[in-house]
Amino acid sequence: MNIFALLTSAGINIGICALLLSLYSVLRKQPGNVSVYFGRRLAEQQNRSLDSFSLERFVPSPGWIVKAWKTSDEEILASAGLDAVAFVRMLVFSIRIFSIAAVVCLFGVLPLNYYGQYRHHVKIPSESLDVFTIANVEQGSRWLWVHCLALYIISCSAYVLLYFEYRRIAQMRLIHITQSSPNPSHFTVLVRSIPWPEEGSLSDVVHNFFTKYHASSYLSHQMIYRVGKVQKLMNDAEKVYKKVCLKANMMDQKHCPLKYRSGLCVEAANTSQLSHDEFDLSAKNKDLGLSDSTTKLQECAAAFVFFKTRYAAVIASEVLQSSNPMSWVTDLAPEPHDVHWSNLWIPYRQLWFRRIATRLASIVFMFLFIVPVTFVQGLSQLDQLQQAFPFLKGILKKKFMNQIVTGYLPSVIFVLFLYTVPPTMMLFSTLEGSFSRGGRKRSTCYKVLYFTIWNVFFANVLSGSIISQLNTISSPKEIPTQLAKAVPRQATFFITYVLTSGWASLSSEAIRLFSLIWNFTKKYIFGRKNDPTSVPSFPYHTEVPRVLLFGLLGFTCAILAPLILPFLLVYFLLGYVVYRNQILNVYVSKYETGGRMWPIAHNTTIFSLLLAQIIALGVFGVKKSPVASGFVIPLLIFTLLFSEYCRQRFRPIFEKFSAQDLIEMDKEDETCGRMDEIHQQLQSAYRQFSPDSDSSESAEDDGSIARDVDVKDCSN
Amino acid sequence: MNIFALLTSAGINIGICALLLSLYSVLRKQPGNVSVYFGRRLAEQQNRSLDSFSLERFVPSPGWIVKAWKTSDEEILASAGLDAVAFVRMLVFSIRIFSIAAVVCLFGVLPLNYYGQYRHHVKIPSESLDVFTIANVEQGSRWLWVHCLALYIISCSAYVLLYFEYRRIAQMRLIHITQSSPNPSHFTVLVRSIPWPEEGSLSDVVHNFFTKYHASSYLSHQMIYRVGKVQKLMNDAEKVYKKVCLKANMMDQKHCPLKYRSGLCVEAANTSQLSHDEFDLSAKNKDLGLSDSTTKLQECAAAFVFFKTRYAAVIASEVLQSSNPMSWVTDLAPEPHDVHWSNLWIPYRQLWFRRIATRLASIVFMFLFIVPVTFVQGLSQLDQLQQAFPFLKGILKKKFMNQIVTGYLPSVIFVLFLYTVPPTMMLFSTLEGSFSRGGRKRSTCYKVLYFTIWNVFFANVLSGSIISQLNTISSPKEIPTQLAKAVPRQATFFITYVLTSGWASLSSEAIRLFSLIWNFTKKYIFGRKNDPTSVPSFPYHTEVPRVLLFGLLGFTCAILAPLILPFLLVYFLLGYVVYRNQILNVYVSKYETGGRMWPIAHNTTIFSLLLAQIIALGVFGVKKSPVASGFVIPLLIFTLLFSEYCRQRFRPIFEKFSAQDLIEMDKEDETCGRMDEIHQQLQSAYRQFSPDSDSSESAEDDGSIARDVDVKDCSN
Repeated sequence: MNIFALLTSAGINIGICALLLSLYSVLRKQPGNVSVYFGRRLAEQQNRSLDSFSLERFVPSPGWIVKAWKTSDEEILASAGLDAVAFVRMLVFSIRIFSIAAVVCLFGVLPLNYYGQYRHHVKIPSESLDVFTIANVEQGSRWLWVHCLALYIISCSAYVLLYFEYRRIAQMRLIHITQSSPNPSHFTVLVRSIPWPEEGSLSDVVHNFFTKYHASSYLSHQMIYRVGKVQKLMNDAEKVYKKVCLKANMMDQKHCPLKYRSGLCVEAANTSQLSHDEFDLSAKNKDLGLSDSTTKLQECAAAFVFFKTRYAAVIASEVLQSSNPMSWVTDLAPEPHDVHWSNLWIPYRQLWFRRIATRLASIVFMFLFIVPVTFVQGLSQLDQLQQAFPFLKGILKKKFMNQIVTGYLPSVIFVLFLYTVPPTMMLFSTLEGSFSRGGRKRSTCYKVLYFTIWNVFFANVLSGSIISQLNTISSPKEIPTQLAKAVPRQATFFITYVLTSGWASLSSEAIRLFSLIWNFTKKYIFGRKNDPTSVPSFPYHTEVPRVLLFGLLGFTCAILAPLILPFLLVYFLLGYVVYRNQILNVYVSKYETGGRMWPIAHNTTIFSLLLAQIIALGVFGVKKSPVASGFVIPLLIFTLLFSEYCRQRFRPIFEKFSAQDLIEMDKEDETCGRMDEIHQQLQSAYRQFSPDSDSSESAEDDGSIARDVDVKDCSN
Repeated sequence: MNIFALLTSAGINIGICALLLSLYSVLRKQPGNVSVYFGRRLAEQQNRSLDSFSLERFVPSPGWIVKAWKTSDEEILASAGLDAVAFVRMLVFSIRIFSIAAVVCLFGVLPLNYYGQYRHHVKIPSESLDVFTIANVEQGSRWLWVHCLALYIISCSAYVLLYFEYRRIAQMRLIHITQSSPNPSHFTVLVRSIPWPEEGSLSDVVHNFFTKYHASSYLSHQMIYRVGKVQKLMNDAEKVYKKVCLKANMMDQKHCPLKYRSGLCVEAANTSQLSHDEFDLSAKNKDLGLSDSTTKLQECAAAFVFFKTRYAAVIASEVLQSSNPMSWVTDLAPEPHDVHWSNLWIPYRQLWFRRIATRLASIVFMFLFIVPVTFVQGLSQLDQLQQAFPFLKGILKKKFMNQIVTGYLPSVIFVLFLYTVPPTMMLFSTLEGSFSRGGRKRSTCYKVLYFTIWNVFFANVLSGSIISQLNTISSPKEIPTQLAKAVPRQATFFITYVLTSGWASLSSEAIRLFSLIWNFTKKYIFGRKNDPTSVPSFPYHTEVPRVLLFGLLGFTCAILAPLILPFLLVYFLLGYVVYRNQILNVYVSKYETGGRMWPIAHNTTIFSLLLAQIIALGVFGVKKSPVASGFVIPLLIFTLLFSEYCRQRFRPIFEKFSAQDLIEMDKEDETCGRMDEIHQQLQSAYRQFSPDSDSSESAEDDGSIARDVDVKDCSN
């Protein structure tokens, strides 16, 4: 592939991006698409009236870019929560570090690579891309210290930036915890694996245990029930009823939006309160032995236990309760909307087994996925393609087709395959048994991350069959050399990957093609109205791994093939605008993990740095420059030390609450006299049978409900 | 090496063992050696009068064997604590599993190995040992399923035995915690990394923090001081004074031992109380700004904080105290005699760094140790030896010398080298900064364990230079095949290793040669008297790894070279008698970790099982028996699952205390009205400046003090 092919590919992609983004800026102004592009605002009932016909509606405009760029972190924090801010900070960190890397590498390393060998330079457009990589530097060159210095500058900037970002997010998390309005999850402990009593109900066992051992702080508890089929039907019926209600209300919306809002709230709250009470009653009936034939409720060995103070709840969640570590297992409860009800039914004794099984399954999936990757790799090697499909020979002889096939097609097919990964991993994480949706998403995020890094980076670099890959990873000593040889060779693929997968995914993220088509079909073919309750939440489990993957590509290729850096920078800048826009307009944050995505980003960046350094070690080895190799080793050690320090200093903040903060918060609430009110609200915070908490729907993350906003407003 | 050579070696060792043990049974009856062989009894003041001269004193007798054998676990528990019982249970487990393995392998596998190939069998004594290993079974043999079945029987017996042992030790630990007399460490939390105040003393900071956040449960605290040179001198002076006192008292001992005991107690208690008060005073002086010129006490950012109940202490130790995870670090305090005072001065911020540095240092040490091992390996290959030292040719031509050199000498040299390992590892563990002696010993135990397994097992099996070893470990896929080829080849070495290192170490452990010589020199050359305060504690850090290493050899060689099993069984049986005898008579348990050695033993056994199965997998692969290989894989998976289950089920019991138990204990003490008394005792439980707690002496574990018994008696 030469510069011209690269520019062709870049040209196509810039064209597509510009087209899609212009289309977006037009489409978002159409009133019919409000539910697609302003789901979040719709959910917040700040419905803009876009009905008036004007020419302006059909002219692309960059206003949204300016708005997304100018919104401050504080505004995002206020409207979309800390998770969104943490995600935006990943982009900011990437922009900063790769700006530095771009300056250093384009002006320092690139010329060295280009003039690395005495050779006849053709005109730059027809120059092979390999000429710009480190592969062009001759063995034992005296100029390799520049590469080493560039690596030092990039690594040290990364340490500094990472440290300050981690500290910043940790501070924000602390503020988020201490300053936020009382959160029922802080007072609640999820108890699992309650031992079955010989007589009496499980509820009594829970009551007795906590009144005995946590007498001073125990408030009440709420058993978790296994939902039978009857329940499900009733829930569905109620859901339909509520939707009808909502739609009826919607009719009046335009006339009195404000009144509507409060009206709906009260009504919704009443309805769900009613349903809640109803089921409470039936639960009590069951406790009294009066089993109701219509509502068969089966107690699970799990319960939410409410405590009087946050500190007491944290204590109960962290201290080992019983001398059998597999009974009375306590964890701090997730937020009400974060609870994954159907996983609470899973017996605790199964969990360790499920965890191992799903991990194995993901690993198997990770390796079997190689088959399409190998096929795609074949496509990018023209000769093999012509051998496999002789009839293509004629077409591929044309220069333009040739360039498209080598520069563009491989990545597209590959990206299409990648779309199947997040749902599969989400399925694995659901089976794993996490009790919170946030936990499930985080677990999926890890799986998708490992998957992407393995299949996009390593599988491409090491290329070839599964067996040859296994051979490579089974001789760790060879890895630096292997990578050192392979990464510069694959740099072309990575650059086109940034162009296709990166840029294109961003513009398709902006335009939300699937939602747009679905919305269109729903409206004009099925004749359904917009459902303001179906606003998706931000897909962290697909977007975080993607951003981190591009970070990995950036770090590893920076000094080897600096040409990738400008493309990456464009990606991150575009991503910054698009994601902020989507966070502000499209997605609703239904629950909050308080920035717990950040440690994933931090650790992955450390991993990327280590990998880049190991590859550099290999490259300097291959280039026979022992001095440069020697200088990389202290850097490797320092990266490990830095990582360990950050783990000691910041990690616990993301995993535990500190006694000091909790006690201060409790004291403040007590002096304000808010405690009783909070205790009151606790009783109805976790509603297993409210239609909001559809306990069996695993695809929920991209459908239904944004009513938490309403319910919260009511309850506060 | 043939059977005759093996029998020669065994004969020499049996002779040496019998000689040493007979010698022991005579020496132990000599009154001059009481301090060597009855240190424990001496410390407990149950001094037996052995002065009367009789012939019986010089006749070997097996009485001690009978006594050691008959003592029940309960008696050991009562006299030497749970750690000793856990150690004895390791031996019991080994005896049981290797009895089963010996029966299965000697009657099932051994004949198959012997008749595995059509070959001319010579007379058994001249038969090479290789004939008895799996190396003699021909490729693709139909009889390999017997080996596979034997592996299944051994593995399944191991699962069952391991499970019940783990459950048993866990139960004992729970009983130990709940039934033992009130332990000051249960009420005490060690706080480190206390933030330095801008004004006022650290002590005030601690007081303010805990009265603010743990008002209801905070009792008092005790700062930790950095000991200056003056302190050390004073401590030493006091120590000398006390020793003189003790000796003076000792004179009267024979006349009124009972009175003496109580007398000493009171005196000792008074002395140390006095010194304690004195230092308290000086601490107060310092707080008031009246710095005393003679006693410069420098506060450290660490303190012992006492709580009113056990539960409160556990809460304070487990909950994150501050939003900066690197300040106010809390841990449950070790027992008073378990505290490693000088490590408490280390700033907490250094610890993570020290941990990494010492780990790296141990790994480097582990690999550099290979040099003598390689040399020893050379010795066992006669040809190489003759090449290196041509003048030996004549000597080595003699058959007997030849047999000694190949069968005996290599192990002896190797064993001598191994003696330097535990002190080195202990040094590393001290530098690591563990705040308790028990923790340091456990850490050393891990290091010695890794070291021994690597250098005795892997380094011997993979043989050759460091580089060829690194080559092998750097291609993990090859490991099963490599091991499969090497282990049967090295079986001879392992058998002689059991004979020399195993048997001989046991008899030298019984006879305690170094102590004996030291005692003799001290008495007759320096003219010093016995010092009843210098009783060593049990060297778990050397003995646990040794026993576990022999377990590893047993598991890995069982089906490959079953001849090792009878020798191992003899080792474990002898070990059972010798160690019980030593535990009962020689060593004093100064502190108690409550069986926390057991998880190390459990995990190592699981590792041994896994290794045995991986090697079997390789062997069946080499022997071209895919069916047998296929059957090993489920076993591997089951081992991993079993390990994970045990980790879930039992591990937390060894790491945390359960709320249920602690609250019950607190309640019981409160209803008995014992609480006030306990609180009183707490104040003087941790004495930094009592001469007992010599804070800078790292070799203490094998020297000084058994006064805990006395002090305990006084304070209870």
